[in-house]
Amino acid sequence: MKLSIIVIGDEILLGQVTDTNSGFISRTLGAYGWETVRIMTVADKADDIRHAIETCMEDSNLVITTGGLGPTKDDITKPLLCEIFGGPMIFDETVAENIREVFDKRGLKLNPLTEAQAMVPQSCKVIQNRLGTAPIMWFERRDGHVLIAMPGVPFETEGMLVSSVAPMIAERFTPDEFIGHRVLMITDITESALAQRLERFEAELPEGMHLAYLPTPGLIRLRLDAIGNCGTIGERHLDEAYRQLCEETAPYIIFKGDATAAEIALDAVRRHGWKITSAESCTGGDIAHTITMISGCSDVYVGSVVSYANEIKSGVLGVPPELIERHGAVSQEVVTAMVEGVARLMNAECAVATSGIAGPGGGSDEKPVGTVWTAVHTPDGTEAFVKRYPGNRSRVIDRATTEALLALAKKINRRP
Amino acid sequence: MKLSIIVIGDEILLGQVTDTNSGFISRTLGAYGWETVRIMTVADKADDIRHAIETCMEDSNLVITTGGLGPTKDDITKPLLCEIFGGPMIFDETVAENIREVFDKRGLKLNPLTEAQAMVPQSCKVIQNRLGTAPIMWFERRDGHVLIAMPGVPFETEGMLVSSVAPMIAERFTPDEFIGHRVLMITDITESALAQRLERFEAELPEGMHLAYLPTPGLIRLRLDAIGNCGTIGERHLDEAYRQLCEETAPYIIFKGDATAAEIALDAVRRHGWKITSAESCTGGDIAHTITMISGCSDVYVGSVVSYANEIKSGVLGVPPELIERHGAVSQEVVTAMVEGVARLMNAECAVATSGIAGPGGGSDEKPVGTVWTAVHTPDGTEAFVKRYPGNRSRVIDRATTEALLALAKKINRRP
Repeated sequence: MKLSIIVIGDEILLGQVTDTNSGFISRTLGAYGWETVRIMTVADKADDIRHAIETCMEDSNLVITTGGLGPTKDDITKPLLCEIFGGPMIFDETVAENIREVFDKRGLKLNPLTEAQAMVPQSCKVIQNRLGTAPIMWFERRDGHVLIAMPGVPFETEGMLVSSVAPMIAERFTPDEFIGHRVLMITDITESALAQRLERFEAELPEGMHLAYLPTPGLIRLRLDAIGNCGTIGERHLDEAYRQLCEETAPYIIFKGDATAAEIALDAVRRHGWKITSAESCTGGDIAHTITMISGCSDVYVGSVVSYANEIKSGVLGVPPELIERHGAVSQEVVTAMVEGVARLMNAECAVATSGIAGPGGGSDEKPVGTVWTAVHTPDGTEAFVKRYPGNRSRVIDRATTEALLALAKKINRRP
Repeated sequence: MKLSIIVIGDEILLGQVTDTNSGFISRTLGAYGWETVRIMTVADKADDIRHAIETCMEDSNLVITTGGLGPTKDDITKPLLCEIFGGPMIFDETVAENIREVFDKRGLKLNPLTEAQAMVPQSCKVIQNRLGTAPIMWFERRDGHVLIAMPGVPFETEGMLVSSVAPMIAERFTPDEFIGHRVLMITDITESALAQRLERFEAELPEGMHLAYLPTPGLIRLRLDAIGNCGTIGERHLDEAYRQLCEETAPYIIFKGDATAAEIALDAVRRHGWKITSAESCTGGDIAHTITMISGCSDVYVGSVVSYANEIKSGVLGVPPELIERHGAVSQEVVTAMVEGVARLMNAECAVATSGIAGPGGGSDEKPVGTVWTAVHTPDGTEAFVKRYPGNRSRVIDRATTEALLALAKKINRRP
């Protein structure tokens, strides 16, 4: 089934805001068997929106729009949809009630502009937006093609898609079908080598099942999708294929389920009732930031030291200055002293540390840009390794953060 | 003049990678007077790419494609462009030379797949990609409409656009026109209040000049664009309008030029020859990360402490435990002790500190989610303030980071 996504908003077109909604929708509905054929970004202009809708409704079973639903004058999507699908605008009391509740929760006062959001086209089915005030609208054309208008705020679109809209889409388009999936997180193998290893497994998968490779630097998300008639496919078949998949990929599995590198590391630390900390030079706080973006991390994460200057490595983490002088800050000796120093200082059982050259300056023939020493520490001891990551400053930092967190998880998982 | 951007790549369509190229292109060419009318994201499929190109070339003077130019079998854009614009593929020795140089610099060996990148359509003008191996191609249709094919790697596209491609576009489309702009960074005023304040200024701007508002949370980038015939508009006119604009917005200017909050803070600290550090609770390392993403920050940034757990606030930063017990971690007293503690520990003249509730859990009636205490410290003393930021965890952290860095810059700039 074909899906088109239309992103509405001058702020996206002007490059002021980066659209992340389309990627989220594509990933989420991909697991339900939808193929995204096109993403179009258009201005808050009636003609442009209308043209995009007409183009997409032609060849797509489902069209999802995001944005253009706010109460300000820029937002013209709602009356336009009313015009396209016919019928009048009507006042919807359930929407008004939802808006009052949302405002109440936020401690805000209603204004007339907000009440106007309770006006909706009669031709649509309303899906209450429990995370915001703009109602979600479901339109259906005579040929069965569906358009769903969702808000532009990522928090609202993501939450409502997962909790309500995606299940409703599955119900409408594949009412008698089984839809399920399992995810594995894979590391230490390239995507192409993994695909080669799984060639026979994929070829022998029963109809309705297939593998999706979702690679990120250092970590591959491997998703097993099952879609098909309830009579021929179900949880039992999915479980059996998943068991086989786990066997085939056993040496490379770092987590069974869907998780980021930070979530994988926190999970490993949490299972032992330990605490985690970090000492960061080249990653400059990115490891701490990545961990603390996870809500609820405070049961295992205590804090970090970003020791950018050598004086901080010595003065705060207790790295002997002679060590830095003799081996340089980017060395096995210094990163090992950093990780042990921060574990002591923070009174944590587990720690990771990085010291490297993120670039663009600071590289040498011996230690070119991208060279990063990483150390991981657990009650079982300390290990350090050096790698050279490709790309610019931001990619080197990002990759070094991922590798440090995964290395810690692997060391803990290897525990006898 | 109208611009369309086509983003090519399954990885974008599947939601594996977030496209940032289109926003960068739109922002950059916006300063040259280009209006982006459409962004289309399509798969690595010949029919889809062809259809997008045909649609966009109709109503746009300029079409820029990104992606689809790599050496692997997925990438079919180059032969397709050759077919659309006519003529054969030819081997281009200057491109081959560039590829050899790039590989040499990276210490990599050439393989036949890479050499194939030196094949280009005869119908295009090649722009050497000094940051990568995929050549940039400039096609011109008989009606004067231009298509430029750029690589998908953001680092390459951004660098080459600014250094080569944008100036070439300006030369081709507006050869006798003056194009210039000035940027101001504005804070402590909403976008709508600023627009109201500048209503008369904007109305009285000479033809060819206009203001662009580029708001981000906590900071507005205000850009004055000048485009027009060299006989009637030039540097002198732009300077005069810019001088007036500075007068009109004086109380709200935090930086003259284009800069992020972290760059503004580092600049203020650097001008005094000082050092900067941070003590972070709710921002969890995001301030450190934001600063260290700036290459060359090490002349003023020494390091940070992320003191997530209260024991770290006391044990490492020296915040008296009684203070935390009496006032709570999210309080003026504790954030003040944190900022002074970290300045002492890190031996830095300037420091920022945050303590707040990023959510979604941990809020109370008295201190709801989004409440953040921020402290800034300079040789002139310490100040603290509390604000409540809207949005989810990620937005609260992002906003708290921006406000802390701006508050430090403002305190330094107020210096007698």
